[in-house]
Amino acid sequence: MSKETQKVKKQDKDISLNDMDSLEFSEWYGEILETAKIYDLRYPIKGCGVYLPYGFKIRRYSFEILRDLLDSTNHDETLFPMLIPETLLAKEGEHIKGFEDEVFWVTHGGKNELDVRLALRPTSETAIYHMMKQWLKVHTDLPFKLYQTVNTFRYETKHTRPLIRLREIMTFNEAHTAHSTKEECEAQVKEGMYVYSSFFESLAIPVLISKRPEWDKFPGAEYTTAYDTIYPDGKTMQIGTVHNLGQHFAKTFDLEFETAEGEKDYVYQSCYGISDRVIASIIAIHGDKNGLVIPPKVAPIQIAMVPLLFKGKEEIVLEKSNELYDKLKKFARIELDTRDIRPGRKFNDWELKGVPLRIELGPRDLENDKVMIFRRDTNEKFDVAIADLTAEYLVDLMETVTSDMAKKAYDAFLGHIEILNIEGIDNESLVETIKEALNNRKVVLIPFDEKLYNEEFEEQIGASILGECEFEGTKYISIAKTY
Amino acid sequence: MSKETQKVKKQDKDISLNDMDSLEFSEWYGEILETAKIYDLRYPIKGCGVYLPYGFKIRRYSFEILRDLLDSTNHDETLFPMLIPETLLAKEGEHIKGFEDEVFWVTHGGKNELDVRLALRPTSETAIYHMMKQWLKVHTDLPFKLYQTVNTFRYETKHTRPLIRLREIMTFNEAHTAHSTKEECEAQVKEGMYVYSSFFESLAIPVLISKRPEWDKFPGAEYTTAYDTIYPDGKTMQIGTVHNLGQHFAKTFDLEFETAEGEKDYVYQSCYGISDRVIASIIAIHGDKNGLVIPPKVAPIQIAMVPLLFKGKEEIVLEKSNELYDKLKKFARIELDTRDIRPGRKFNDWELKGVPLRIELGPRDLENDKVMIFRRDTNEKFDVAIADLTAEYLVDLMETVTSDMAKKAYDAFLGHIEILNIEGIDNESLVETIKEALNNRKVVLIPFDEKLYNEEFEEQIGASILGECEFEGTKYISIAKTY
Repeated sequence: MSKETQKVKKQDKDISLNDMDSLEFSEWYGEILETAKIYDLRYPIKGCGVYLPYGFKIRRYSFEILRDLLDSTNHDETLFPMLIPETLLAKEGEHIKGFEDEVFWVTHGGKNELDVRLALRPTSETAIYHMMKQWLKVHTDLPFKLYQTVNTFRYETKHTRPLIRLREIMTFNEAHTAHSTKEECEAQVKEGMYVYSSFFESLAIPVLISKRPEWDKFPGAEYTTAYDTIYPDGKTMQIGTVHNLGQHFAKTFDLEFETAEGEKDYVYQSCYGISDRVIASIIAIHGDKNGLVIPPKVAPIQIAMVPLLFKGKEEIVLEKSNELYDKLKKFARIELDTRDIRPGRKFNDWELKGVPLRIELGPRDLENDKVMIFRRDTNEKFDVAIADLTAEYLVDLMETVTSDMAKKAYDAFLGHIEILNIEGIDNESLVETIKEALNNRKVVLIPFDEKLYNEEFEEQIGASILGECEFEGTKYISIAKTY
Repeated sequence: MSKETQKVKKQDKDISLNDMDSLEFSEWYGEILETAKIYDLRYPIKGCGVYLPYGFKIRRYSFEILRDLLDSTNHDETLFPMLIPETLLAKEGEHIKGFEDEVFWVTHGGKNELDVRLALRPTSETAIYHMMKQWLKVHTDLPFKLYQTVNTFRYETKHTRPLIRLREIMTFNEAHTAHSTKEECEAQVKEGMYVYSSFFESLAIPVLISKRPEWDKFPGAEYTTAYDTIYPDGKTMQIGTVHNLGQHFAKTFDLEFETAEGEKDYVYQSCYGISDRVIASIIAIHGDKNGLVIPPKVAPIQIAMVPLLFKGKEEIVLEKSNELYDKLKKFARIELDTRDIRPGRKFNDWELKGVPLRIELGPRDLENDKVMIFRRDTNEKFDVAIADLTAEYLVDLMETVTSDMAKKAYDAFLGHIEILNIEGIDNESLVETIKEALNNRKVVLIPFDEKLYNEEFEEQIGASILGECEFEGTKYISIAKTY
């Protein structure tokens, strides 16, 4: 039995997803989206679906955290057009090459054929940098630190997956910055990474940070740093990327300015983005066989109150429940469940929906001025005196839940990482060892070796080189099967 | 001099926009978008532009109010795809006829031609009602009360105007409801109207409510009720519509359900929407020749603090300013302006940006523990003891500003309304009188008369019949030049 299920009081069986292979996980994931009413994929266009109210709220609270982080680091929120003229998109050669097979094209307005085809933005560099040109004259105009949260589009020909590989990426939070010096731009890349690390931390999602190899960096970037998390089936999911663009786009878009010394220079740029995949990852990383487990900060309902309405005691239980509800709703997103169905079904519902805390109010407990609390993340049950249910208590408890969820997720994450000692091993055996580890649902780290850091080796192992990866103070090549 | 400028202490000249004709207003409007950094229209697609950080914040705070109103009336937020297959969009005959000349079509994905053309949503009825079909079986599934805030698209061939007539409507908040009875649907229409009236009230925007004539209702609706406000040039701007759809779409989309009595019926539906035009209207209705005047609730900066740094007194003034800033920033969105430019330029900047309150901190006043407050809406200046600058004081003052802005706007609104007595007047004279009033920048109300309520009469007057309009207890036909 794995470490994280030893605490379980209610159930003996392991309900974690860690024993699942890709097919089983995929089935679990598809089913939970439907039963927990997160996202409906029955829309009549491949790779396009609907955020249902419950899923939308998780999205809303999650991206509000990101917005707060970006605002508090002086990023300015903006909104740029969704359509990009072909002439503009094609301006940056490498960039368009990276996207041209995936762009949706608008060719007609009403019955008229358009003079210039319009792309549905696959990403917004070209739109934003064209406008930056209008705003830039001298160094005092800088820095620009902008972001937006928008829908973007990719004509995916591969198998699509809800919230993971979409044709309409409904949520793309992209930041774009411009600076007068290379050093300032480097510092900005670090700030972007700080923002993302903080964001994933508040969602209790563990990440592996890899500098992507040259052949897998963002089209048009100097270098790309990526955040990957590990799904229960051992495959990695890229959930955030930070790019140092150098002066590459600046030269294409003529982002020239007058320096403090009166000379001409091009700006140095960075950009970074996070998508719906973070929502998919909240589901995949924390969920178990009973359903979702949502971190309290982004839970649409943080506490579900279930009155146990035994015959003859209904009135007093309901009265006390309403009283407590009125008190607690000021501190938390709370729902009082008075549906006319048996408690067991209510318990299952709220567990399926991943509500972090459940308060059960039975007549016996209430007589003793107590209630029972159930923690979704650990399946623990314990009683608490009603007088102790203060704002502080609940805030503390939810913080404990978050940090315990982070620990549990990190344990599972570590369980998926295999560090290989490659000293003295020949190439053939190395390839076999790596393949075997990958098949055992591991992400493999091998000590960094220039000779192995190439596409040929990647092809041999039949998986992805995530990149150069610092892990516990050592530099590795990170290798994984990826989504 | 008009009533609303009599209070002005600082300036004698009338700075309101009420004397402007359409051309002058249009120039003022275009200029303010640029100088106050609201929206940049230099994007290389007609009718598409960029929300700049300051404009974005006004949008954000405004639509947060609408979101709160919708949430608190139990509307569920969702997100539907932007692309709609042609087959789905064309399902409702009247509806597609109303939009087909205005739809942008995606025909290609990468290098492939698509089998079915995809529309950029001009509005979302067809996408949403197709999905409602998947969710509906019995009456207990109802009601559905959904909303989303999304970008929509219209291939406008007419003259486009920033935030008013766009090809990409960047912000469209649309609600869609379904009910088991006609009565419940009627009640929902009223709730929608309550939400919109509350919304416009919190923005201090006066509105005329008209039931649109048959020939101008929403394609596919039973009837449409519209909110029009009146711009300084006397032309009306439609800023919100509420539609009762009856069972029209329900029959097309087969939204059939089992009633409580075990019979089959179609749902009754309503929908209502508000767009970026509300942002344009905040600007147009409250602005004056010195710039924007933003209602406190949605002002990106509610208070600008300007220390007056006379020689030798800089230190003490800055110290006191910082102290006050630290205290006030907990209650309000506040900016301490320490730029190295002269105070007069700062004053102009903050007036241009429409910041509701300015606090001037001069050494003399500070010695007496006072500051000077300037109200942007009235141009009044008065001193206040620092000790009196409490949270309550500021909240009260901002509420006074809002209600005074509402009064001022309503006075201007009334100044644009002309009620005509048509008794005994022949048709030709009536047409002439109406035309003259319209040319004098009036919106005309004539007592409701079935004989005049038709497209022929509309053509004679060369303006728009807004519809049936209850005003101060009487039923009129409302007539206006419209945007």
